[in-house]
Amino acid sequence: MPLFPQSVEELTDHFARLPGIGRKGAARLVFHLMEQNAEDVRAFAGAMIAARENTVFCQECQNISSGAVCPICKDEERDHSVLCVVAEPRDVAAVERCREYKGLYHVLHGVISPTRHKSPDDVRLKELLERVERGGISEVILATNPDTDGDTTALYIARLLRPFGVRVTRLAYGLPMGGHVEYADEMTILRALDGRREL
Amino acid sequence: MPLFPQSVEELTDHFARLPGIGRKGAARLVFHLMEQNAEDVRAFAGAMIAARENTVFCQECQNISSGAVCPICKDEERDHSVLCVVAEPRDVAAVERCREYKGLYHVLHGVISPTRHKSPDDVRLKELLERVERGGISEVILATNPDTDGDTTALYIARLLRPFGVRVTRLAYGLPMGGHVEYADEMTILRALDGRREL
Repeated sequence: MPLFPQSVEELTDHFARLPGIGRKGAARLVFHLMEQNAEDVRAFAGAMIAARENTVFCQECQNISSGAVCPICKDEERDHSVLCVVAEPRDVAAVERCREYKGLYHVLHGVISPTRHKSPDDVRLKELLERVERGGISEVILATNPDTDGDTTALYIARLLRPFGVRVTRLAYGLPMGGHVEYADEMTILRALDGRREL
Repeated sequence: MPLFPQSVEELTDHFARLPGIGRKGAARLVFHLMEQNAEDVRAFAGAMIAARENTVFCQECQNISSGAVCPICKDEERDHSVLCVVAEPRDVAAVERCREYKGLYHVLHGVISPTRHKSPDDVRLKELLERVERGGISEVILATNPDTDGDTTALYIARLLRPFGVRVTRLAYGLPMGGHVEYADEMTILRALDGRREL
């Protein structure tokens, strides 16, 4: 005999499929929703459908967008000759927050990962190559995470782009601002040593 | 100029209102959903509406239920003379998991908390009193959390129930099974000392 209504269990299943939400966390969210008034829950469900139906991937950078071309790719004031390659849309948001970068983006929607069986075909690499092939790109900045899969992906893309003669760079990695040498892990210190600069 | 489509921002707002989910976590969930196929997202939204519309509070124990009386309260094999008072529906699930308790429940849907401005009227206490008044209850087990608000709530309920002459008990608190004295916090050790038993 199930403890809670079947419809509650089904909604819990849906929440538990979201990344980073376990079964108990999902149940907690569902219980919360069951105590909200029905109109608010309907509005939430409606927003979910609306967001999904109105969202496409920008035909240029592959970021999520409401139009065929996203506002960043449409922006004439940005430098269309520089592409910053990131793994996920949230990485675009992170780079935009620093208000310094004025080029365009390319969202891979994942990284190449032999251990998680993600091959180059599982990320939007073909679209990146097409953009570079079309010409007009002077630099591609690889901004994948500084971890095994992120590095693998960056190296793979760098090799693919070599024939095109564009400048390919990678974000600098080292001690985070405000960080302590004492608490930094070995890999970070290694990267920081590796990338040391003349003063 | 917003970075992501308006509908995506609106859905993020809804997720960010859920307990324990911040703005960044909400965005992460939304990005994930935007990459799922539209039918799956519609199914999720439909499950949300269905769960909320089909769920009521059991007129006896106030737990969430699909019928006017929940399966536990309806179960003739359970001991209808014992009530276990918990703060939330998820606490019912936790007690049920130990497969030992055979009485009924009463879900308060919150705790009394002077610091968070939750008065006795904000929890389902009236309904508990009505059940006890009706008679047939021999014991009320207070199973609120062992923290300030949980203790306040338990003490308040214990005092309210005194005139009815029912046995009022509280869950035992002490070292968790598998725990280490070395790592236990002072309050837990204090409770464990307080509740020590003869060997």
